[in-house]
Amino acid sequence: MKLNIALLAGDGIGPEVIDQAVKVSDAVAKKFNHEINWTPALTGAAAIDAVGEPYPDETHEVCAKADAVLFGAIGHPRFDNDPSAKVRPEQGLLKMRQKLGLFANVRPTFTFPSLVDKSPLKRERIEGTDLIILRELTGGVYFGERGRKDNGNTAFDTMTYQRFEIERLARKGFEMALKRGKKLCCVDKANVLEASRLWRETVQAMEKEYPDVEVSYEFVDAVAMRLIQWPKGYDVIITANLFGDILTDEASVISGSMGLMPSSSLGSDVSLYEPIHGSYPQAAGKDIANPLATVLSAAMLFEDFNLKEEAEAIRAVVNKSLAEGVVTEDLSEGSKAYKTSEVGDWLAVNI
Amino acid sequence: MKLNIALLAGDGIGPEVIDQAVKVSDAVAKKFNHEINWTPALTGAAAIDAVGEPYPDETHEVCAKADAVLFGAIGHPRFDNDPSAKVRPEQGLLKMRQKLGLFANVRPTFTFPSLVDKSPLKRERIEGTDLIILRELTGGVYFGERGRKDNGNTAFDTMTYQRFEIERLARKGFEMALKRGKKLCCVDKANVLEASRLWRETVQAMEKEYPDVEVSYEFVDAVAMRLIQWPKGYDVIITANLFGDILTDEASVISGSMGLMPSSSLGSDVSLYEPIHGSYPQAAGKDIANPLATVLSAAMLFEDFNLKEEAEAIRAVVNKSLAEGVVTEDLSEGSKAYKTSEVGDWLAVNI
Ligand SMILES: CC(C)[C@H](C(=O)O)[C@@H](O)C(=O)O
Ligand SMILES: CC(C)[C@H](C(=O)O)[C@@H](O)C(=O)O
Repeated sequence: MKLNIALLAGDGIGPEVIDQAVKVSDAVAKKFNHEINWTPALTGAAAIDAVGEPYPDETHEVCAKADAVLFGAIGHPRFDNDPSAKVRPEQGLLKMRQKLGLFANVRPTFTFPSLVDKSPLKRERIEGTDLIILRELTGGVYFGERGRKDNGNTAFDTMTYQRFEIERLARKGFEMALKRGKKLCCVDKANVLEASRLWRETVQAMEKEYPDVEVSYEFVDAVAMRLIQWPKGYDVIITANLFGDILTDEASVISGSMGLMPSSSLGSDVSLYEPIHGSYPQAAGKDIANPLATVLSAAMLFEDFNLKEEAEAIRAVVNKSLAEGVVTEDLSEGSKAYKTSEVGDWLAVNI
Repeated sequence: MKLNIALLAGDGIGPEVIDQAVKVSDAVAKKFNHEINWTPALTGAAAIDAVGEPYPDETHEVCAKADAVLFGAIGHPRFDNDPSAKVRPEQGLLKMRQKLGLFANVRPTFTFPSLVDKSPLKRERIEGTDLIILRELTGGVYFGERGRKDNGNTAFDTMTYQRFEIERLARKGFEMALKRGKKLCCVDKANVLEASRLWRETVQAMEKEYPDVEVSYEFVDAVAMRLIQWPKGYDVIITANLFGDILTDEASVISGSMGLMPSSSLGSDVSLYEPIHGSYPQAAGKDIANPLATVLSAAMLFEDFNLKEEAEAIRAVVNKSLAEGVVTEDLSEGSKAYKTSEVGDWLAVNI
């Protein structure tokens, strides 16, 4: 197979972790006789510095033409705490999601046998957790009208959902559930929000198309609680953009290491793969960041092109590195800490 | 002191837990020579059944005239999963908050030495947690304009904040922080939402009035993570209505028992005290619900009237009941489980 992949390293530790994912992907490609064509493009603060725009048109063209996008992270501290900044790296992220039509953010949450005890949660609560949160990514309050009134003394944001947006997200959810635990939980705030009532209505109407999937409806506040109390109770969760933002980050605590959690953002034409950790500026340039989340995001990419053995090979070598202690300082616990690049090299050689 | 307290038992286990809080409050009043006048009034599903309205005008009058309101819980399963229901118990709650002007919901999160190991979180992460979440309760997307367009295929809700709403909430937060750990964290989503940018702006402008308070600004998704990873890092959190709804429920997991967590909702004229657990319909009428959250809410009431010894007496007898195992079945762990009413009697006698 020939794959054209747009490579958006972004800010902070982005470039370093992306490098390792490229090494590992190239090694897999070689082993299984595929050809990967990487096309780098600018995004985030790096793009603002270069061309004044966090998601430049040239970058969009590269992504739109590619078979998939591998993404690092964006964000830079000099834009934080500056509510008045006109151009912010995050805007690039939102623009990218919208222009590429990345409507479904897929975030698996699972535990690694060798790392279960690193979680702030007790082992018996989390061991065997295997859930997916499917977050709507191009609608809701992220993209509704917003502004100020009354000389700036009143601010508003509009949370809007259209039936088709909910339907296409829910359809992905039902289909994923069918291939997994056959349980779908729609998370909303239907006791308050009209948009949530439309979510519930829409999903309820689809239930009969998927008689084998057991569907439940829960309020977001209750789920924020239950996710921690008993994550094993969930299989596939579907939810709106803002709720998904909060719940996916919350769920990332379960595994005990953000540095390990991959994600994908699915569009109709092209999809994007990225680690869920951010740009982690404190570690940038030090060759100490954990590259595994990005490497595992590449595994999700292969899987989506139906290259299951390839994906499995990546996951297997990641597990091997964890078992043998070839890990960065966040996981080394007093033993030798490997550099980001050393972990990448080791994975590429051992695949 | 003479206190007129409106008594809103509500639905589910509400009446049972409220009864115990009344017993204990009366015992404290007797001991310290106060007089409490209780005026019961209807609310929730119970009020819908009686007069077709979840927060009837008569109930509002009782509350508005009272010195304080003690509240049980509202909600009934026959209204759930029925997005089309015209009158819902929750509407009563929202109407009550709005009409009484209960703009600040105060939710302390702390651990009980004897119960630390019941938490899903590891002891070392939570022992000594002592934080307060101050949730804005009468604004934001809960009270903005909402509706449908396009033949019902588009739904919208408006998240609005005015500067004065943020200011009065933040002021409470600053003042609480001054009396405690002197740290205030403003939680928002200022990288996306205009309303959040107004929050940040407003709080930043107030910083100079409180030079002794260390202020930080964090994104709600990050806090959903950090609350679980390291709750001891927080002192006072201030946040908008919807974020507070999610974070307060999430935080309730820390203590290991929702049945123990009290809250208050402060207004300019009258304030309301309630357990954070809901109406828990499965347990209703069985005399098994844990009354301690309601009893501890009564302690918060006394405290707010500057009756500190009285509040302390309640907390002390609650701790004693926990230490001596005079607890309901949710905490009894194989030992004898006391009934709701037995726990209430024991507390009243031992105060
Ligand atoms: C940076 C921010 C705009 C973004 C979001 O809220 O979607 C981030 O938190 C995420 O989850 O990818
Ligand atoms: C019942 C519901 C409307 C309410 C809310 O969202 O405010 C509840 O979850 C709460 O937190 O008191």
